[in-house]
Amino acid sequence: MSKKLTPRSQDYSKWYNQLVVEADLAENSAVRGSMVIKPYGYAIWEKMQSDLDRRFKETGHENAYFPLFVPKHLFEAEEKNAEGFAKECAVVTHYRLKNDPDNQGKLIVDPEAKLEEELIVRPTSEAIIWSTYKNWIQSYRDLPILVNQWANVVRWEMRTRLFLRTAEFLWQEGHTAHATKAEAIEEAEKMNEVYAEFAREVLAIPVIKGRKSPSERFAGAVETYCIEALMQDGKALQAGTSHFLGQNFAKAFDVKYTSKEGKQEYVWATSWGVSTRLMGALIMSHSDDQGLVLPPKLAPYQVVIVPIYRKQEQLDQITEVAEELMKEFRDKGIRVKFDHRDTHKPGWKFAQYELQGVPTRIAIGPKDLEKGTVELARRDNLSKEFIQRNEVVDRVVALMDEIQDSLYNKALDFQESHTTKVDTFEEFKEVLEKKGGFIAAHWDGTEETEQKIKELTKATIRCIPDKQEKEAGKCVLTNSKSEGRVLFAKAY
Amino acid sequence: MSKKLTPRSQDYSKWYNQLVVEADLAENSAVRGSMVIKPYGYAIWEKMQSDLDRRFKETGHENAYFPLFVPKHLFEAEEKNAEGFAKECAVVTHYRLKNDPDNQGKLIVDPEAKLEEELIVRPTSEAIIWSTYKNWIQSYRDLPILVNQWANVVRWEMRTRLFLRTAEFLWQEGHTAHATKAEAIEEAEKMNEVYAEFAREVLAIPVIKGRKSPSERFAGAVETYCIEALMQDGKALQAGTSHFLGQNFAKAFDVKYTSKEGKQEYVWATSWGVSTRLMGALIMSHSDDQGLVLPPKLAPYQVVIVPIYRKQEQLDQITEVAEELMKEFRDKGIRVKFDHRDTHKPGWKFAQYELQGVPTRIAIGPKDLEKGTVELARRDNLSKEFIQRNEVVDRVVALMDEIQDSLYNKALDFQESHTTKVDTFEEFKEVLEKKGGFIAAHWDGTEETEQKIKELTKATIRCIPDKQEKEAGKCVLTNSKSEGRVLFAKAY
Repeated sequence: MSKKLTPRSQDYSKWYNQLVVEADLAENSAVRGSMVIKPYGYAIWEKMQSDLDRRFKETGHENAYFPLFVPKHLFEAEEKNAEGFAKECAVVTHYRLKNDPDNQGKLIVDPEAKLEEELIVRPTSEAIIWSTYKNWIQSYRDLPILVNQWANVVRWEMRTRLFLRTAEFLWQEGHTAHATKAEAIEEAEKMNEVYAEFAREVLAIPVIKGRKSPSERFAGAVETYCIEALMQDGKALQAGTSHFLGQNFAKAFDVKYTSKEGKQEYVWATSWGVSTRLMGALIMSHSDDQGLVLPPKLAPYQVVIVPIYRKQEQLDQITEVAEELMKEFRDKGIRVKFDHRDTHKPGWKFAQYELQGVPTRIAIGPKDLEKGTVELARRDNLSKEFIQRNEVVDRVVALMDEIQDSLYNKALDFQESHTTKVDTFEEFKEVLEKKGGFIAAHWDGTEETEQKIKELTKATIRCIPDKQEKEAGKCVLTNSKSEGRVLFAKAY
Repeated sequence: MSKKLTPRSQDYSKWYNQLVVEADLAENSAVRGSMVIKPYGYAIWEKMQSDLDRRFKETGHENAYFPLFVPKHLFEAEEKNAEGFAKECAVVTHYRLKNDPDNQGKLIVDPEAKLEEELIVRPTSEAIIWSTYKNWIQSYRDLPILVNQWANVVRWEMRTRLFLRTAEFLWQEGHTAHATKAEAIEEAEKMNEVYAEFAREVLAIPVIKGRKSPSERFAGAVETYCIEALMQDGKALQAGTSHFLGQNFAKAFDVKYTSKEGKQEYVWATSWGVSTRLMGALIMSHSDDQGLVLPPKLAPYQVVIVPIYRKQEQLDQITEVAEELMKEFRDKGIRVKFDHRDTHKPGWKFAQYELQGVPTRIAIGPKDLEKGTVELARRDNLSKEFIQRNEVVDRVVALMDEIQDSLYNKALDFQESHTTKVDTFEEFKEVLEKKGGFIAAHWDGTEETEQKIKELTKATIRCIPDKQEKEAGKCVLTNSKSEGRVLFAKAY
């Protein structure tokens, strides 16, 4: 049998770490806080990338590539951004190693190859990009600039976890430049909606769309829009953010344009990003004690065929059937794998594909050959059925949508049943402790209260939801006036 | 009118640099030696990526992602590799900045945040990957490992040029592990052939396939296979390399497997890569004094439609025609753009799309509306024809293959007419100086002779071609025995 995971009920965090490694998604590397994304995990990330990339292009964006390094004088130009990232950035100071004279075969940094100016490994690219946009923008005709880049970034996080928080991670970062404030806000909101749709339609994760409180904003942003998802353990996870940056970066890098009326104006900016963190959100939204559960749209293989046989002759017959099925599956656009390895037993394979979240599994044995049937198993609810061989392809095709929808609805039920309105701080603490999830509570709008609640409960304001009834009330902590509920939760 | 380039005949190098910038492919950045790849250039690179990625997957490879940083003790483990890259690598020594107490608003490296061990920004990933493979490989059942990664790498080159030689560049690097020497050699040769096919079929660049001389091998390789292309100025460009690494990295990182017979054996390795340098090869193979010439397979837009009008009413009518054409083009899988901007004149647009190498251009004016015609221009040979509107889509579809083939054949003619057999060193120098190109000459096989020829002529051995008649002869410099001709050239 394959490796058994620690049950979620026993230790959610341990379950998560084991699942990531055992399902061959990622592992820790020799570099502190940096992960290796293994082929199976990367194949899922590639599917996310290609779907997102299509959505970006459909909304008028183009890809480009900007340098990995940010010279220090550019890094520090936008003060709040610099302040926000200075404490966790990797710094290149030298450009050469030399042989260690005291230690044969070893290398040391060559002190003569010290850089005149340090280079920061990008934690985010506003600084390097806006120093570039300065040369791209002269007139209103040059606007808007709608650019995205797929890249690696580095943030020297002290406590790291595979996918959720790593020193290096992969992401996309959109950086747009606009002639007007209204257009930039529209862009930031639109991209937050693109993320929300992607989460719902592809990740099968329901998300709450909203804005961050001032203290949770991106460093350098005027407004941060976000999508927040709820994990199975009742903790929230920020799945994507989109920032209206105002004219902060345009002013820091002196980026002006000549308007139609001939006036010099500062440019308005947005930036927006999602990262390999989404892999963590995906895992913690759908998976179970048997392992990963993948939405069909993201599964590298949507169906795997496992032969059950004793004799070579049986395998030959099963292979013939499997090859016909594979052809039919491929014609219907279904990603299929036939695992006829003789190095592993069927039981091991079943457990392995369960662990790796393959949405459906077909087993074919000698009796099936006689009867013209196959056994079809479904990963999400672990159900099995025997089905006529000539019906199985259509059934699997139908199951792809069925499973995708079912995962979404299950996650939505969970989110709804774990969103609790509370009106007193006692209730707040009780719900947070006993049930977790989102807590919809009134807040007086001050940073002190937010900070105080965080200290007392570890819960933070995840977002000020876009969709909510106007409702006057009193702050759950201070009893001061509040104009609407915000969502609190403990968060990843 | 758009900007005019310096003619190639006048200054090839200046022509190249101007073209890259004016055609919106790339530009220098604020970071020494690092470039910004602009959206139009990146769109071409994306097409290269997606075609290569498909070829890698069809040959059984999977993508993964490994860390950007290499801890120094891993970097130095394989001695030759370390020696080869130590002199040009960016080194991270600190992980934090702090406020400069002497200079408000400025940041300095925090001396308290010095890393215990320096991190090298990967110049290539053998070291980090083989330290990972050690944990992935126990038994022959774990082999082969066929993995590729798309990544950025950094080599601190002193003299840089857009695309051709930059401190940071984008590439893919395949890293495979095998049970036997024969299988690893087969893999290295196969991937070199994949590169050659890609160059021929997609880039429309004929390449010479062969092996490098020992002194030109990748640091750490036992054998380096390569594809070499010839640029219009008679200089060669190494377009891709594939390395048989023997057991060098397996030994450096102690990677062994248990064979079927139960014996412990070191693993055999390959690595192979192509980079954004291919953009340089593409430009210098096909382009002309008017600008970029793109093979249709790589063109972000394969046809652009430009309206010619005086009155809004005319534009409306042309737009109607253009929209019908666009629909037909899209149905046939042709990438089409309709440039109806009123901020630029038709003449400016014509020059711009010539500069950017769009393979075909359709102009529609009031007279065309009357006659039911359009003007169709072809970028590669700058020819024009008037054609019936209902024939233009099929004509453009046919032109895509015609242009792709024509570019290849033209480049092949050039390569063949610029490959010269020489038998004396006088002739060698004369051909190199007056004509350039590949010089097929006998060489005695020693590094001294290779080095001496380089000193005397700046030409190096580009490759020992796979395809050549066995022919005994005498070294062009030393008169010593030679068993076949090798290709010399000056190179990028």
